[in-house]
Amino acid sequence: MLADRKLPEDLKKMSYTELEDLAAEIRNLLIETVAKRGGHLAPNLGVVELTLALHKVFNSPEDKIIWDVGHQSYVHKIVTGRWQDFHTLRQRGGISGFPKPEESPHDVFATGHSSTSISVALGLAKARDLRGEDYKVVAVIGDGSLTGGLAFEALNNAGHLKTNLIVVLNDNEMSIAPNVGALSTYLSQARLNPTLYKFRADLEQFIQKIPKVGETTFRYLDKIKDSLKYMVISGILFEELGFTYIGPVDGHNLRQLTQTLTDAAHRQGPVLIHVRTKKGKGYPPAEKDPIRFHGVPGFEVSTGKLPNHSGPPTYTEVFGATLVKAAAEDERIVAITAAMTEGTGLRQFSQAFPARFFDVGIAEGHAVTMAGGLARAGMKPVVAIYSTFLQRAFDQILHDVCLQSLPVVFAIDRAGVVGEDGPTHHGVFDLAYLRMMPGLTIMVPKDENELRQMLLLALKMDKPVAIRYPRGQGTGGSLSTVQAFKSGEAEVLREGDDAAILALGPMVHKAMTAADLLKNIGIHCAVINARFVKPLDQQTILDWARRVPHLITVEDHVLTGGFGSAVLELLAEAGIQHVQITRLGYPDQFIETATIPELHELYGLTAEGIFRSVAGRRLTLASGKK
Amino acid sequence: MLADRKLPEDLKKMSYTELEDLAAEIRNLLIETVAKRGGHLAPNLGVVELTLALHKVFNSPEDKIIWDVGHQSYVHKIVTGRWQDFHTLRQRGGISGFPKPEESPHDVFATGHSSTSISVALGLAKARDLRGEDYKVVAVIGDGSLTGGLAFEALNNAGHLKTNLIVVLNDNEMSIAPNVGALSTYLSQARLNPTLYKFRADLEQFIQKIPKVGETTFRYLDKIKDSLKYMVISGILFEELGFTYIGPVDGHNLRQLTQTLTDAAHRQGPVLIHVRTKKGKGYPPAEKDPIRFHGVPGFEVSTGKLPNHSGPPTYTEVFGATLVKAAAEDERIVAITAAMTEGTGLRQFSQAFPARFFDVGIAEGHAVTMAGGLARAGMKPVVAIYSTFLQRAFDQILHDVCLQSLPVVFAIDRAGVVGEDGPTHHGVFDLAYLRMMPGLTIMVPKDENELRQMLLLALKMDKPVAIRYPRGQGTGGSLSTVQAFKSGEAEVLREGDDAAILALGPMVHKAMTAADLLKNIGIHCAVINARFVKPLDQQTILDWARRVPHLITVEDHVLTGGFGSAVLELLAEAGIQHVQITRLGYPDQFIETATIPELHELYGLTAEGIFRSVAGRRLTLASGKK
Repeated sequence: MLADRKLPEDLKKMSYTELEDLAAEIRNLLIETVAKRGGHLAPNLGVVELTLALHKVFNSPEDKIIWDVGHQSYVHKIVTGRWQDFHTLRQRGGISGFPKPEESPHDVFATGHSSTSISVALGLAKARDLRGEDYKVVAVIGDGSLTGGLAFEALNNAGHLKTNLIVVLNDNEMSIAPNVGALSTYLSQARLNPTLYKFRADLEQFIQKIPKVGETTFRYLDKIKDSLKYMVISGILFEELGFTYIGPVDGHNLRQLTQTLTDAAHRQGPVLIHVRTKKGKGYPPAEKDPIRFHGVPGFEVSTGKLPNHSGPPTYTEVFGATLVKAAAEDERIVAITAAMTEGTGLRQFSQAFPARFFDVGIAEGHAVTMAGGLARAGMKPVVAIYSTFLQRAFDQILHDVCLQSLPVVFAIDRAGVVGEDGPTHHGVFDLAYLRMMPGLTIMVPKDENELRQMLLLALKMDKPVAIRYPRGQGTGGSLSTVQAFKSGEAEVLREGDDAAILALGPMVHKAMTAADLLKNIGIHCAVINARFVKPLDQQTILDWARRVPHLITVEDHVLTGGFGSAVLELLAEAGIQHVQITRLGYPDQFIETATIPELHELYGLTAEGIFRSVAGRRLTLASGKK
Repeated sequence: MLADRKLPEDLKKMSYTELEDLAAEIRNLLIETVAKRGGHLAPNLGVVELTLALHKVFNSPEDKIIWDVGHQSYVHKIVTGRWQDFHTLRQRGGISGFPKPEESPHDVFATGHSSTSISVALGLAKARDLRGEDYKVVAVIGDGSLTGGLAFEALNNAGHLKTNLIVVLNDNEMSIAPNVGALSTYLSQARLNPTLYKFRADLEQFIQKIPKVGETTFRYLDKIKDSLKYMVISGILFEELGFTYIGPVDGHNLRQLTQTLTDAAHRQGPVLIHVRTKKGKGYPPAEKDPIRFHGVPGFEVSTGKLPNHSGPPTYTEVFGATLVKAAAEDERIVAITAAMTEGTGLRQFSQAFPARFFDVGIAEGHAVTMAGGLARAGMKPVVAIYSTFLQRAFDQILHDVCLQSLPVVFAIDRAGVVGEDGPTHHGVFDLAYLRMMPGLTIMVPKDENELRQMLLLALKMDKPVAIRYPRGQGTGGSLSTVQAFKSGEAEVLREGDDAAILALGPMVHKAMTAADLLKNIGIHCAVINARFVKPLDQQTILDWARRVPHLITVEDHVLTGGFGSAVLELLAEAGIQHVQITRLGYPDQFIETATIPELHELYGLTAEGIFRSVAGRRLTLASGKK
């Protein structure tokens, strides 16, 4: 049917039966494709009907649909001319896993980080008003994204500005426990508003005093009580912020969705439609375990079996296991995640120490500032957040932790390029945005063993520490060998007088291989595992800078303001001029979607790349001598 | 009375009459001191009784009081042992204008940026629970700060965690218009919740059907209707998030405040006390114009006359006037502020183009992402935010603007050190946190005339641009002389072969003076106005690096990752080794409170400082030659 139809235009004339057939076909395409390519399965299975209804009622791209976070935009891509290319999902040069304006005019705005859609929609809507245009603007936001403060700021502002705007709350009851939980259990709680409590007491007393005049009266009273409850659990939060609230609507009922969206399209002012969907809908393994099927690396369609990785543990796993062990010995250790218990490896910790574990929702800023409070009152908080998402807490790290030198440990996972999730998710800015913060120690482990040691060291230091480590598996080097080191101490792994490679994190192993290759052509190259970006091991770096003619820095990070720049600053400060510096890392551009090895290859962050940059200079010098 | 009492302990035994006398004495001290030293007057006059009541009911420092933003903590400082030093307010080495833990154990947590207090309080409270301690934790937050998403994230999380915690909402009806406004006008709006509407209709119908059984019944009905209205306007937002709501309470009635706080201290779970205060209370000029008296440079006590600055216009004024002029010619220009209409110079714009002006509340993240939406739909948004506060939108600039290269202009006021507001407010990190963002142009005007030109240039460029300029007055150079320049074009102001100074912003004029001084001792020094931190004028900088033996960079910014580092990166990339580089700027530490000239002096960012760093090298070389 995808092949026979001109979409999204044809959606408007299709019957509900035809739409249901189309939904089934799309679900198959989603399952087949994600099984092969990996990606976000459960969120997309949950919004098949919602997406079809949106494109049936609205006229994209004239009407603008903004997908919050954007990982649920696969169906949107399929019905806006990209189904034939959909098999290239998340591959280099293929269809992005997130909305991408360069890809299609239907992708109005790039998203990737959570909670931005209402702000974007409000901007589009106000621009429309000012330009005298009349298209519709729709933001689709999940219940989880609503816990982000940015979404609240935008709701508050939109309610005030009163412009026409539709927010679709895609409530799959997954991640909004603190919020919807509080709402839905509201009336059953002991902790009631005294006023409300008084109202109910009055009502009860009132009911008892009413003369019996037949059943009619009682039915009205029941209605009042039901209305009150309904009012409370059904969106007065949004109403108070100035939105018209509609819902809840069954998010898998195409007729109901279409009617509700049509209704909303004709209302004035900001409207919020509460849609209830089921994550993973239509694929039993994903319905059963939507958390595991949220994002998958691929799976077996018939069984829903996810691949178990073999070989060495991931950095994430080593972090999680080490923290559990440390926490057993030190009661002051607490862990904080921003809606990423699984991804950051804190599942085991959350089970072993539930009282010392905090999942604060998609609220990175609050996670960090709360950690500041915990540290001030004597605890040792470990905040585990992906590199790209920690960008959202930049000011909190600086202002609420570093300014007071509070002992908070930042466990920064997914640092460096992350592969298929692409430019919105690469963690390639963290060293630059952390390095300027006074008093912050920044560590980068060369392998999972060193990560373990660094975490233990960080927990012993009475000051803020950041440890950044990459996505994926470690090297499998023996985890039992522990060589103690101090803060700010680099490790010289290999000596050599022709050049010295200052490598960071997993780049260290590539540097060692490069040094082997260089030795084969007669170039003797030292390799130093820098370990610390701040404080730098000044003595070691300066010693080598004085000893060799060529220093090479290697980092899985942008060159602007990164580790290599820290080395440049140190050498300039020390007045060392004679040594030539080559910095390897990412250029000043957003890094595209591709696998991690592809990206490392592309930007020369491989043993061969390092080899070339050292040998190339030698060749240049040699040719210059002629 | 301050002199006779041991505070805060004595507050507990003082009568309400004595407390009122004390309040009057404190108001006088506040007015006299701020009249001389400058500072935040109206916010502190508004919380005199609230602060006394807090210290009467709670036992600081065992009980923890967190002051959101912190500029309203003067009274707290006066009653916690600092009244004798209070005359040193905001001076170098004196009493800080914000809570400062190094200053007193009563200052539990440093604040300065808005909306952090509930996160901090929640961290303290959870640490207390885990450690089996039993003190009280109180966050005092203004209605304005509540519009920040961070506060919402914390409220949401606190309501979920249910720990004992008191939030005092200091509602002075100043900045929360979108929020409280929506609440209080709720019932009178046509845009009603259909359910609520139906409930009321049912109630009316029900009332009409009730047989008349005397006045009792009707009184109950009135109570129901009053309760309903009261419930809606009085904090169900907080109740829905899991808080017990108490209030509103008269914030200038010591008895009522004391009783309410005592009540709250005995409740379980999170409690929100809604206190209504009057900003500027007790000083007629401040009551009359609380916005002007929010923060003042000093004033005449008897008349309330604020000083009019004489001489050249401020950068802020030139920015505001230029934008109004440009907006008159280009309908696409819109302006956005985050609750800083006055401070950012947008008052005139807001009056000239009310439909194109957006004050989004204290919500920097939303301001930036909304600007992204406006730009996507064809507008030219100018986002005016202080350097230190823009830190709160780091991810939004990167992810929602630069990633898509949207034409948003960031007008970054108060860049560089800001003087008396101290370490939480210095804008000394912006170049470092902006420089890593791909595709962003960063301009720094040497004076107010160049600011005007840069703004006009930025508005013509179809890409993201940041312009950072300092607090205070310009140089007064002729505003009529306009020398056009292109993006990325530096300006060579003076030639010389002994050294070249690459200066940024107002440092350019100091560099010129330094060059004069140097000439007197026979050193011929070039001066280059860099103008652009990104893209650098590579050709000009490389040419001069090849020509002179010594290059000096000067910036009103931290050295780590700043402009000087950008120059080091460029030279390393170009393989230029022979030139010695001296970078002048702030070291890797938080910069203290002092006047701007004092700080520039202290860190060598003066003509003499530049002179010494150039001449010093020459002397060193000379002595080395012996």
